[in-house]
Amino acid sequence: MPTVRVDDLRTLGEAIFRAAGATPENAAGVTASLVGANLAGHDSHGVLRIPSCIEEIKQGGLKPAATPTVTHETPATAVVDGGATFGQLGARLTATLAAEKAKALGLGAATAFGCAHTGRIGEWAETGTQEGFITFAAAAGEHGPFQTVPFGGRERALGTNPFAWAIPHASGAPPILLDYATSAVARGKLLVARDAGKAVPEGWIIDRDGQPTTDVGDFFAGGALLPFAGHKGYAMSVIVEMLAAGLSGGQRTPPGEHDSCLFVACFAPSAFGPADDFAASVERIANRLAEQPPAVGFEMVLLPGEPETHSRREREHDGVPLADATWDAIMRVARELDVTHPAIA
Amino acid sequence: MPTVRVDDLRTLGEAIFRAAGATPENAAGVTASLVGANLAGHDSHGVLRIPSCIEEIKQGGLKPAATPTVTHETPATAVVDGGATFGQLGARLTATLAAEKAKALGLGAATAFGCAHTGRIGEWAETGTQEGFITFAAAAGEHGPFQTVPFGGRERALGTNPFAWAIPHASGAPPILLDYATSAVARGKLLVARDAGKAVPEGWIIDRDGQPTTDVGDFFAGGALLPFAGHKGYAMSVIVEMLAAGLSGGQRTPPGEHDSCLFVACFAPSAFGPADDFAASVERIANRLAEQPPAVGFEMVLLPGEPETHSRREREHDGVPLADATWDAIMRVARELDVTHPAIA
Repeated sequence: MPTVRVDDLRTLGEAIFRAAGATPENAAGVTASLVGANLAGHDSHGVLRIPSCIEEIKQGGLKPAATPTVTHETPATAVVDGGATFGQLGARLTATLAAEKAKALGLGAATAFGCAHTGRIGEWAETGTQEGFITFAAAAGEHGPFQTVPFGGRERALGTNPFAWAIPHASGAPPILLDYATSAVARGKLLVARDAGKAVPEGWIIDRDGQPTTDVGDFFAGGALLPFAGHKGYAMSVIVEMLAAGLSGGQRTPPGEHDSCLFVACFAPSAFGPADDFAASVERIANRLAEQPPAVGFEMVLLPGEPETHSRREREHDGVPLADATWDAIMRVARELDVTHPAIA
Repeated sequence: MPTVRVDDLRTLGEAIFRAAGATPENAAGVTASLVGANLAGHDSHGVLRIPSCIEEIKQGGLKPAATPTVTHETPATAVVDGGATFGQLGARLTATLAAEKAKALGLGAATAFGCAHTGRIGEWAETGTQEGFITFAAAAGEHGPFQTVPFGGRERALGTNPFAWAIPHASGAPPILLDYATSAVARGKLLVARDAGKAVPEGWIIDRDGQPTTDVGDFFAGGALLPFAGHKGYAMSVIVEMLAAGLSGGQRTPPGEHDSCLFVACFAPSAFGPADDFAASVERIANRLAEQPPAVGFEMVLLPGEPETHSRREREHDGVPLADATWDAIMRVARELDVTHPAIA
């Protein structure tokens, strides 16, 4: 398992995307998000997606030099057409617009349609925290393919529909971050289990007959993911799809085209009272939790987002460990595009 | 188990609160919310709380004739002081203000501090849907008493911190509604299990030593609730407290006084595009889910909020079934306050 320095990942990724037709801005934008996902420890949304992005560019579905555009705007809201380019670019524009609106009014929200995969949802909640805003983000596809059953159902009818909340932490410390799928688990973890030949825990998946199973092969043979926490995760999944795909007007994207949708809302603490008071509340709550005695089997109580922060600190310093198959696939794509880079010399 | 007609519950509740010193408006406002919780099937937030409200009024903590006030306002936001009267009144004002702001700007948010128990959180998300707005609501106390452990912790350090999302349904049908606590289960269900002498499922509670248990007595002997879905419910609990108690400046309420806090945000679909397009998306998603084949053990796939709708339809027609102990306690309070009413003749 190679460990690749962050700078090398970034410059290599940018070079690959440029060689595939991306503008320098687009190449830098998507690579920053992919490497950022690896830094946060969310490898399933990181550079392992480079080869599939390149494949989509080759097939014409993903437009590497396109630019997302704003199709609708009010003082408080905006709608972005992702332009079928890298989804992270439409997502970044959406998150930035939500924050800009909130700077003026205290609240702001924006939504996007027609994006390729928008990447790590937590990134679009973190974006608003850089301006000091509490931020919510939700992502869903308009047309599927679906992977998750509704609670009480037996067939795939929902995406993994992830959402995130981020709350700015005083003095520039990393934000409090909630970031997860509304399925029991992200699809990437099923791939990992399959490659490792391991059973998955009960409550993750059902087989094609709707029966609970721990054999991950049953998922790939026509089974489905369960929502997390039964009816609770199911309800949130429905809300996420209605917010992201519904508000953005995602249905205007024809089936077969990139149809990822995003919703981002920012709330400025200063619109409710002195920003310092809010910062003090966040500190007080965070400290109360961090001081809790751990349960058996735990070293300490972590705040939401601390795992991402620890991963980021470690990988910024030590580099990003990549599975052999991931690194091989990236090197293969680089060679095909005649990209030379010291890391693959 | 008596079944009481909705009109009787309403007029009796109002009479009791008026006899205890509530203004007619306050009595009507709190009773509407309590009976509304029973109608929705959330009995733990319904009229069973009448006796404890009256007790709090007697002890001076709950001010039955006070009025919530607006302490801070911007074009997009507002902050409400609950005034230590019935929490549902401050909550209703907060939800109404959030919707009023959204009428003007497309987005609106309001928050409240200094409330007594704010009741069924779903009601404050449903309020905004009456204006056609997607609405989020979250409630938390500032000072505890806490009942839930953080993920990886062993001592009570969080409330049950519930939240809700409601999405307006086309043509006046009841909204899509998510409404649940971030603890594994509401405290009321533990009371029910205790009274029934039943064990609770694994994953609900731990004992005072931090060990998993199914003996509900262990909770009342110094144990604690677990968050729902492990780190996922824990993260949402932290977000809820920071939104509700943090943004409202809940820390200004001295310990020992009513300290419930609320956060409500409204999003107008028409701020993002034609409202009809959004309504069509909601219908399309809802129909896709309702048409799903059910899993074994289920009759059909329900939409979030359908259980509440079914309960409402049944109880509006048949009346509200109340546990003997609940009805006895209400009649006792009525007699003590010299309230006469046909239902308790």
